[in-house]
Amino acid sequence: MHMTFSVAVAGASGYAGGEMLRVLLAHPEARIGALTAHSNAGATLGGIHPHLRSLADRVLAPTGVEALAGHDVVVLALPHGASGAVAAELAGRGDGAIVVDLGADHRLVDPVAWETYYGSAHAGTWPYGLPELLHAGEPTASAQRDALAGARRIAVPGCNVTAVTLGLQPGVAAGVIEPVDVVAVLAVGYSGAGRTLKTHLLASEALGSAQPYAVGGTHRHIPEIAQNLRAAGAPDVTISFTPTLVPMSRGILATATARLVEGTDPAAVRAAWEAAYADEPFVQLLPEGQWPTTAATLGANTALVQVAVDARAGRVVTVTAIDNLVKGTAGGALQSLNLALGLPETLGLPLEGVAP
Amino acid sequence: MHMTFSVAVAGASGYAGGEMLRVLLAHPEARIGALTAHSNAGATLGGIHPHLRSLADRVLAPTGVEALAGHDVVVLALPHGASGAVAAELAGRGDGAIVVDLGADHRLVDPVAWETYYGSAHAGTWPYGLPELLHAGEPTASAQRDALAGARRIAVPGCNVTAVTLGLQPGVAAGVIEPVDVVAVLAVGYSGAGRTLKTHLLASEALGSAQPYAVGGTHRHIPEIAQNLRAAGAPDVTISFTPTLVPMSRGILATATARLVEGTDPAAVRAAWEAAYADEPFVQLLPEGQWPTTAATLGANTALVQVAVDARAGRVVTVTAIDNLVKGTAGGALQSLNLALGLPETLGLPLEGVAP
Amino acid sequence: MHMTFSVAVAGASGYAGGEMLRVLLAHPEARIGALTAHSNAGATLGGIHPHLRSLADRVLAPTGVEALAGHDVVVLALPHGASGAVAAELAGRGDGAIVVDLGADHRLVDPVAWETYYGSAHAGTWPYGLPELLHAGEPTASAQRDALAGARRIAVPGCNVTAVTLGLQPGVAAGVIEPVDVVAVLAVGYSGAGRTLKTHLLASEALGSAQPYAVGGTHRHIPEIAQNLRAAGAPDVTISFTPTLVPMSRGILATATARLVEGTDPAAVRAAWEAAYADEPFVQLLPEGQWPTTAATLGANTALVQVAVDARAGRVVTVTAIDNLVKGTAGGALQSLNLALGLPETLGLPLEGVAP
Amino acid sequence: MHMTFSVAVAGASGYAGGEMLRVLLAHPEARIGALTAHSNAGATLGGIHPHLRSLADRVLAPTGVEALAGHDVVVLALPHGASGAVAAELAGRGDGAIVVDLGADHRLVDPVAWETYYGSAHAGTWPYGLPELLHAGEPTASAQRDALAGARRIAVPGCNVTAVTLGLQPGVAAGVIEPVDVVAVLAVGYSGAGRTLKTHLLASEALGSAQPYAVGGTHRHIPEIAQNLRAAGAPDVTISFTPTLVPMSRGILATATARLVEGTDPAAVRAAWEAAYADEPFVQLLPEGQWPTTAATLGANTALVQVAVDARAGRVVTVTAIDNLVKGTAGGALQSLNLALGLPETLGLPLEGVAP
Repeated sequence: MHMTFSVAVAGASGYAGGEMLRVLLAHPEARIGALTAHSNAGATLGGIHPHLRSLADRVLAPTGVEALAGHDVVVLALPHGASGAVAAELAGRGDGAIVVDLGADHRLVDPVAWETYYGSAHAGTWPYGLPELLHAGEPTASAQRDALAGARRIAVPGCNVTAVTLGLQPGVAAGVIEPVDVVAVLAVGYSGAGRTLKTHLLASEALGSAQPYAVGGTHRHIPEIAQNLRAAGAPDVTISFTPTLVPMSRGILATATARLVEGTDPAAVRAAWEAAYADEPFVQLLPEGQWPTTAATLGANTALVQVAVDARAGRVVTVTAIDNLVKGTAGGALQSLNLALGLPETLGLPLEGVAP
Repeated sequence: MHMTFSVAVAGASGYAGGEMLRVLLAHPEARIGALTAHSNAGATLGGIHPHLRSLADRVLAPTGVEALAGHDVVVLALPHGASGAVAAELAGRGDGAIVVDLGADHRLVDPVAWETYYGSAHAGTWPYGLPELLHAGEPTASAQRDALAGARRIAVPGCNVTAVTLGLQPGVAAGVIEPVDVVAVLAVGYSGAGRTLKTHLLASEALGSAQPYAVGGTHRHIPEIAQNLRAAGAPDVTISFTPTLVPMSRGILATATARLVEGTDPAAVRAAWEAAYADEPFVQLLPEGQWPTTAATLGANTALVQVAVDARAGRVVTVTAIDNLVKGTAGGALQSLNLALGLPETLGLPLEGVAP
Repeated sequence: MHMTFSVAVAGASGYAGGEMLRVLLAHPEARIGALTAHSNAGATLGGIHPHLRSLADRVLAPTGVEALAGHDVVVLALPHGASGAVAAELAGRGDGAIVVDLGADHRLVDPVAWETYYGSAHAGTWPYGLPELLHAGEPTASAQRDALAGARRIAVPGCNVTAVTLGLQPGVAAGVIEPVDVVAVLAVGYSGAGRTLKTHLLASEALGSAQPYAVGGTHRHIPEIAQNLRAAGAPDVTISFTPTLVPMSRGILATATARLVEGTDPAAVRAAWEAAYADEPFVQLLPEGQWPTTAATLGANTALVQVAVDARAGRVVTVTAIDNLVKGTAGGALQSLNLALGLPETLGLPLEGVAP
Repeated sequence: MHMTFSVAVAGASGYAGGEMLRVLLAHPEARIGALTAHSNAGATLGGIHPHLRSLADRVLAPTGVEALAGHDVVVLALPHGASGAVAAELAGRGDGAIVVDLGADHRLVDPVAWETYYGSAHAGTWPYGLPELLHAGEPTASAQRDALAGARRIAVPGCNVTAVTLGLQPGVAAGVIEPVDVVAVLAVGYSGAGRTLKTHLLASEALGSAQPYAVGGTHRHIPEIAQNLRAAGAPDVTISFTPTLVPMSRGILATATARLVEGTDPAAVRAAWEAAYADEPFVQLLPEGQWPTTAATLGANTALVQVAVDARAGRVVTVTAIDNLVKGTAGGALQSLNLALGLPETLGLPLEGVAP
């Protein structure tokens, strides 16, 4: 049986758009349609993404419904604030495409949280594209998969959010860690900052250096992490979240720690993570004593997770490695899209990283 | 039609062996059989190659014909000097496997060249696994493909050799560059040095530094490059070859330059490269003015090539980018194996790089 | 006035020993005497530390009191467990040298903490070489400087300890942060792991990757951080501490966070850090909104510190950048040695980093 | 004796200007005066160069003679084309400052070469700031030192030029290598491209990649190298020159090769390099078998050189490592300035690199 689908990508010249094309090229049912861009409209893709050899001669159209209409799926890799209008315009024309938003606009349920962190009007909430998201009371993730099955709109999670959520949610759902006073510090590769021309993103500044950004509770991924941990059963969540840029192009290594619920048997901790991820195709709890490295996830739709109990500190420490552009963005999007299309969730998605 | 084949990999714990497994996992007809190692025998693969998630539970057997016998294909990723004996032992037992040698033992035709550069007895010559190798008088590569069709033994080229050969051979075959006094300088990633524990290979020494090795004509890839350029029609070849390690894990950027044959029209230069590679699936001559980057080839069985004429210097300059472990090793091996097995040459091989 | 002193360095072939020589070469009063090594004894320094051009022809003697005796100062850059015996042997011979230990042996006051984390007998406690260490009740650091003035033995702090202590101690001393439930996550360069030949320290494994180590409360720097925060006035300390190796050779970026004492005015937080470091020559609180980068400290005896209050999370977040080999090891040692010798504390120490 | 001099730096916000400040801060006689910038005028230096702690509070004035006049020395770190006018304006006001140009404007003697490579009118030629430049017939460099002694104008060489010239000139001067058909390929760090905002200079593009630029004889450093080799005695020079950007912030590793003059005894080759550099304070010919690394030169005014004869290829191969911002720019400038001021040539210049 085949179920070929056509897909347009808006914002194809950025890193998220380019990676979406890379994973789509490896998908047996995807047929890549229109590619659009803003300032790069008119250029051929080969000069922008020389690694995407199969699409080197494709010309980028200007982003707009003219180019995007008429596909089975439209993927939006646009700056935040832009997705809602495009989706509405498509719907207004009666275009029945599934719309996948790689941006932030439709992730948050709470309009107040949106307005607090983004400073603009909320565009509404779409089904959240993290199939592994645990809901309260679930031993393993199924409610989120149900929400994505047949969905016509998908809000793909933030890359840092995916890493921290996958690291912590088993403990929240099992009630073995406190969801308040969570602390997460992430080592993040530079592709996570996009293809923007800023001095601190220059190679000369980055090489041999580590630098934090959005310190002190200002990062926009914070309310999204809180929302996910509440979904997993936390009545309330507080989180200190600090991302640091380190000299690699891809990858997130998220160290996320939470207080052990008093009186918890350490064995119950590992059991919670084992139960949650035993059957997850893309989330692997490593054998005890082996720690995740981002290199092992490069190019793969994989999250590697490890957990340890620090009895003296009274904290559970989790480390999660993902490729920010794959499991953190384009791969996660395609995984959710598979569910929306009724295809096998794992179809066409890379399991193996490119290492060393 | 299916033509499934079983394959054993000897030396599976090294980088070449691990990459062979990665490309085989993506091949629709390959069934991975025995995996063997020397000092890592007994270990599970997950602890050694955590990026190869599908094989994480596989246990490494000791390298030897006991484990390797009985497969359709045996890939040898062993230190040089070891392959000949394993192949002979397999043959001696009547084992009919196709043997693919990722090492150097069977690449050179000339036993004197072998002995000069390797200081040991020559193990014999196997069909050379570079399908794109031009032979004298050919407009595009076909004789080498004929040599590999149905072959039972394959000697996979050295990674640096692949890069330099692909860069220069169109000019040699077309008679527009002099094959004497060739100069090649390569920027090479650290995985090319293998997983050996040596001080100069430590991250602390490599990060922020560039260092040459095997300077002054001592590198063992020199006679192999010369052999290839002679195949392309050069009566005699001299080459100055200097590899330099630069702070990246994968990738070769080979700058290879040769004197323009006096009186040659510069247009004839580009025409020679265009003609040679117009139909090559894995070698791409970039549009004029665009230069190769190794990042664009990461994880892909792709060589990106560019050529320019420096009229003042009287030299043609070529730059070739490959992933040393893919087109330079495991991908090239699988490409040749496809030919040996009568499968489509491109079957299961990655075209798209993982970038940025 | 001149006060030239002679100095021997034991363990000169390692990174700490080499860096000690680099800072000593720039010190106007130091005269470098014997250099010793273990497995590298007999070699010339030029082949081991080619960056130390002035000492290229020096030959390494075997480590032992024969070579080390007769200097004004002996610096020990030895594996932990070895320093006590050397110091005792020197003292036993009546050698009056000041002994500076770059290793861990004499840092901890509490023998139980030593035995818990190091698993061997405690060698005793030496004056602790962190002049900026705040003691309870002090507005700025002076007691520790008093302890180092004229000292004959100096225990140089661990590099990670220096970063975390400098980040947090103003808040502890001022009573604005809780010293329990501290969380510190560090991005650390590979030179911090020493010149040891281990697979995970290879450039091929490190480039493009981030990896944690000693997760879950096992790192030996934990009791030392706790000891320092207790000195600053904390009745009790608990700390979750996770170092992660990132692809740079030098540098520590320490993100250390602690709960804001309830009811504290955020302005009091900044005031505490400002007061503590206003007059420190080597610790700089950056202007508000500017965050430390490790590149800015490379080669310098400098700690760059920033602090922010995350009101929603109820935590104070500090980020500290140092060069692990300078302020974290050799530069800090020389700063303390200046005090011990009665020289100006800043004499000969580099203030400026090498950037970009 | 003291001979304090005041110095203004125009273009202080760029990498060359920043590095000039770093080396001046370590110079015992330099007193740093006005600092100027173009788009960064009005900013404090601490936000731009956080590694220059001693100057953090300095405010950048707009570049112009108003700020620059009245100093003993003016260093120009400006885009090419801008230096001539500033120098003329200073002279026109009767300002007697020594002017040091870090840019290209006054390096070339031949106006035709200038116009060919830069496409603008030639600004004139200033004394060339490479004290080690050999002139024909000299056993060791002295004529260039004479030219710089007491000079009022200094044109600092290009960084790549310094590396290639130091690598090759002993062989040209001694007549053991052919100055025609020279081939140089360089691995260059990203700071060499300046602080310009261009996509290919982003960390996300650079990390894990190597990329060439200015291939095919177009690089503006080519006529300058030729000029230097002619000074060393070459009647005519042709050179193929290819720089490649590799993932490090600083450093140049130049592999430069030239044909061995027929019939030359290989021992005469090493002898030529030994004689030329035996007494040079900042150029070190390494012991045979040891090869330069850029890390060993980081932050130092040092060139490490090695040479080998490849008898089969008939070529001499030289490898030279420098820090592009120190010996390649600011350190070399200060070395020449010492000569111009009548100070010891080595005064205040760093000999030791910061490694690992």
